[in-house]
Formats: sequence, C-alpha cells, structure tokens
Amino acid sequence: MPVGTLANVKTLTPAQLKETGAQMVLANTYHLHLQPGEAIVAGAGGLHQFMGWKGPLLTDSGGFQVFSLSEIRNITEDGVTFRSPHDGQTIHLTPELSIQIQNALGADVIMAFDECPPYPANREEVSAATARTYRWLKRCIAAHQRTDQALFGIVQGGIHLDLRQAAAESLATLELPGYAIGGVSVGEPPELIVKIVQATAPLLPPEKPRYLMGVGTYREMAQAIASGVDLFDCVIPTRLARHGAAFVQGERWNLKNARFRKDFTPLDGTCPCYTCQHFSRAYLCHLLRAQEILAYTLLSIHNTTELIGFTQRIRTAILNNRFSTEFAHWLIPATAQR
Amino acid sequence: MPVGTLANVKTLTPAQLKETGAQMVLANTYHLHLQPGEAIVAGAGGLHQFMGWKGPLLTDSGGFQVFSLSEIRNITEDGVTFRSPHDGQTIHLTPELSIQIQNALGADVIMAFDECPPYPANREEVSAATARTYRWLKRCIAAHQRTDQALFGIVQGGIHLDLRQAAAESLATLELPGYAIGGVSVGEPPELIVKIVQATAPLLPPEKPRYLMGVGTYREMAQAIASGVDLFDCVIPTRLARHGAAFVQGERWNLKNARFRKDFTPLDGTCPCYTCQHFSRAYLCHLLRAQEILAYTLLSIHNTTELIGFTQRIRTAILNNRFSTEFAHWLIPATAQR
Repeated sequence: MPVGTLANVKTLTPAQLKETGAQMVLANTYHLHLQPGEAIVAGAGGLHQFMGWKGPLLTDSGGFQVFSLSEIRNITEDGVTFRSPHDGQTIHLTPELSIQIQNALGADVIMAFDECPPYPANREEVSAATARTYRWLKRCIAAHQRTDQALFGIVQGGIHLDLRQAAAESLATLELPGYAIGGVSVGEPPELIVKIVQATAPLLPPEKPRYLMGVGTYREMAQAIASGVDLFDCVIPTRLARHGAAFVQGERWNLKNARFRKDFTPLDGTCPCYTCQHFSRAYLCHLLRAQEILAYTLLSIHNTTELIGFTQRIRTAILNNRFSTEFAHWLIPATAQR
Repeated sequence: MPVGTLANVKTLTPAQLKETGAQMVLANTYHLHLQPGEAIVAGAGGLHQFMGWKGPLLTDSGGFQVFSLSEIRNITEDGVTFRSPHDGQTIHLTPELSIQIQNALGADVIMAFDECPPYPANREEVSAATARTYRWLKRCIAAHQRTDQALFGIVQGGIHLDLRQAAAESLATLELPGYAIGGVSVGEPPELIVKIVQATAPLLPPEKPRYLMGVGTYREMAQAIASGVDLFDCVIPTRLARHGAAFVQGERWNLKNARFRKDFTPLDGTCPCYTCQHFSRAYLCHLLRAQEILAYTLLSIHNTTELIGFTQRIRTAILNNRFSTEFAHWLIPATAQR
C-alpha cells in the first residue's frame, strides 16, 4: 500500500497512482483528524470520494503517530493525551475515539488503537503496553459501528518474541477479519524485524490477511512474505522520489548525480511505467537540478511502480512454486551478500 | 501556449498537459542555455524528445530574459554581455548565438533575438532599440540553419505607436513565416497594451500567425484577438496554481480561503478537466492548507484547461460570426465595467 497520509499519495493523482499498479492505499487517522478533520471527510461522502480513490483504503489508528510524532502529556488506561503539532491544542485520543474517527473517514480496513512502545524499552514497559493494547482492542471491537469496515487487530510485544507470540495467540482467538504486526521499524536493527515476523506471522490465521506495518524495503518484504505476510505499507517510494532518488535494478540511485546529465537512456528499460516509457535519465537529472516539481512526480510514479512490481513478481513466483529460488537473493541477510 | 520554461510546464506531465487541450508549448532559450545547455537537449534528440511533448513547440530568443532577468554588463551592436544568474559566468549573447542555440533545441517555431527596451524609456532609447532589433533580425535570418524551423520576427517600439507601425511595416516586407509583437507586459498600463496591439497587429500579414508575447489574461487576449492576434503565451495559469488560486467563472479564487473548507462542489461544474471531474473545492482547500504538491498539479490542470477553453470558445465564436457579441463583456476596458 502506498501511503497517502493526508488523503493523497504525495505528488500523484489517483489516475497516476492507479497506473502504478497500486490496489490499496493507506491514509493516516492521526493526520486527517488534525487536518482537515473527519467531519469534512465524512461530509465529502467519505475518504474514497474525498480523495478520488476508488480502490480499497486502509486507515491506521493513530496509535503509532501519537507515540512517535506528538508531545505526549499523559498516558492512562483510558487513552493518550497529547498536544497537536498542527495547532497546539490538547487532544485526548482513546480507542473509542480512534474508531469513531475511522468510522467517519470510512476506509475499507480500519486498525485498532494500540500502544506502541519505543525502542529500546525495558521488558516490563513492553509487556504492559502489549497487555494494554489487548484491552484497548476489546474496546475498539465494542466501539466499532460499521459492518462494511474490517477492523484489524495489532500484535505488539517489542523485540520480545515470547510477548509477541502470546499476543498473537490471544488475538487469533478473537476471529478478527485481519491481523497486523505493529511496533516494528521503530529503530531496532533490521535483523530483529525478521526474527519478530518469523516468530509472529505463523501464529496468525493463514486464511486472514496478515499485515506488517511500516515495512518496507525489498528485503524486508521478501523475508516477511516468506513468513506469511500479505500486506505492507511504506512511504519509501514517494519519499525517496522527493529526495531525487529512484529504485533501479534493486539499487537506490541519486538521479541528480552528474553521471546522469548526458545519459539518454530510460531510468529502467524494462519498466512499464509512464516515466520510463517517456523520459531519459538526463531529463530527470535536469528537472531535479532545476528543482522542478515534475521531477518528484515522475520519480514517484517510477518508484511506486517498481516496488509494487516487486510484490507482483513475488505473487507470481509463489503461484508457480518458485518464490524461494527466484527470490533467494532477497531472502538472506544483506550482510551475507557480496 | 502554456509556458514550459525549463522544458516542462510546471507540475504537469505531458499527458496531463495534452488533456488540458494545449496544442503548442513555449520554452525559454535563455533558461535552457544556462541549464541544462542546448548540447544536452540536442543529445536527447531535441526538445520534443527531451521533454516528451509531441505537439508543436516554440522557443523565445532569450532577448526578453537577458534584459529583464540578468545583470547586464554591456550592450553593443554585436550583442549583449551579461552575468548568468545560474552560475555567475559571463555570457555574450548575439543574434547568431541565439539562433544557433534555438537550432540546437529544435522547436518548431523560433524567435528572432531582439532588444527589449524597459518601460518607461525615452523615445530615443526606444527608437534605437527598435532599429537595432531590425538589424539583429536580418542577422538572425542569415544565421538560421534549419528549414524545418519557422523563424518569427518581433515588432518592438515601446509605447510609441509610430515606431511600432514603422517596425511592423518593415518586418512585413521580409516575408517571414510569422510575426510577434514583443515588449509589452513590461510594466506599462494595460490600456496601453490594447492601443499598441490595435495599432500594430493589423499591419502584420493576416495570412501569417501573429503572436502577442507574454500575454495574457482573458481581457487582454480577447481584445488582442479582436485586432487579429492568433497566438499567446502566458505563465499565469500555472503560476496562479502554485499560489493556490484558480480561474473560476472569469474570476480568480483563492482556494485556501476558509469559505471552501466545507464546499463539496467541484471547482467549476461546467469544466471538463480532470480536477473538476474528480475533486471538490473542499479537497483542494485541504491539500493547499496541508501544502501538498498535488494541489498545485490539480489547480494547474484546471487553470490551463480553463484558459485554453476560453480561446477555444473564442475560435468557435469567430467561426460563427458571433465573437463581438458573445465576448462583448471582455472587449471593453475593465474600468468600464460594473
């Protein structure tokens, strides 16, 4: 899922986004609550109508953002009080309010409000946050009002595999329509993400979608897919684009580099995207050096197409029973290569 | 012609630009010479190939920009020496070099290198610049190497109608494939532009394209068309978009305004553009307040469609012999209205 934090995937129209092969898009409850507010999104007829995206949408719960972006004032059993970085007002976000906001936004999949402990954190803190996340999940289930929205639960547990496993097993008994692994990509070493996913994903029901939140890169996705993960979200394709970088042949290239000034070949001759079909590396280099906004759009188109293409190739390989051989390169730790 | 200064119309892909109804696009010789340089554009196969625009292209000569954007060091009969604002280097631009650059860029229409006097300027200065512009035009004609590019001459003469008329008559004898009226929109009152165009355009051959450079607004275009002008270029649609403004119903609206926050109607319900067909004023207001780049793209699509639509409606009205009645509103000075 490309990330459309503020009800748009940065620099891309929905028409351009669809052409990348994207199916499902993520938007952020926290950001949309602050700006423009869920009442306006609901007034427009819901998030699909507001942002012009006809495909599936998922909203996160705001939990991760409250804990990572805000100045927290107070965490209690009831919820979290924080100061809005948008206008300084004090906001008290509870499981019930998160669900109420997400019901108003109207995405197809909504997420439980969780407590996401930082990394590093001691075992007692993580254990308490994981237990609270479970109690908050029950409150989310009770608060959820719309049968046309699927509520996913989130497995926390930090880097403690036994806490993760206990949480996954508890959640699995609730027969939710889908499950997520949260609280990764919060600063822990990448090899720990693999271990967490390997220990957790197989305990979640295989017939339900399993979603690894905030991941990822080629390698992280391939390795998580090997453990049974189905769904990812990641800002990398569009964020890298806005830094002038492109995914090409599994590498990250800085297109502003002088070596591209007179390179009249496409970014990737094998890529079907609009950018690769119409423009040269020299043109992208020129646009970046001239700080033209179009550069960010063209690179976002390519990067999103490329990352989604990677998952599409994995899907095909799985169906052909060739995943572990064709993607062997991505299934070993980066440090073991070259 | 939408303006694509640095080989792109700001924030728009060529596919989006085509959907606005745009046929011909202008690019700037001065800017492209400085960055990325005409050698790179030529290396890509020319400007059309470089920027992915299959329709007609026009490059200006650099004259206007040298006189308006640069720190001029010296003007002689040979040419103009100036300091590049891009990297500080000293550049000597002559009629021959301007044509050589434009031959390398490869637009369908290229412009003669002219001396554009400032406003205000005394009659002697303007007279000297106009005479020099004519001598430089002859040198441009001699230097021009490509029969597949149409070289247009430019009428100067400031606000002095007799100088304008003498220049127009001299140029008309040269049997060029097209003619432009330059040196307007340089700070003079709008009513003077009308007078200049009324005095000059009818003296240029009616069977050749007549191009009013750097104009315009609805009113300026309608009034110039009434005098026989065929071609315009203007940065307003995309520049206004980047300031969060839209052309709607002949007015300029600031979409960031609070009155649009909960306005779920399209920008213009009668407009066929992608933006009006898919998004509400509330969404555009939200994107602008969130400083999302997509806002500038969506407003550029609408504004360009709207301004080109205006000229298309004029074309239809002319063919139906209804121009002066249907567009009467635009054919009188703004001060005479309401």
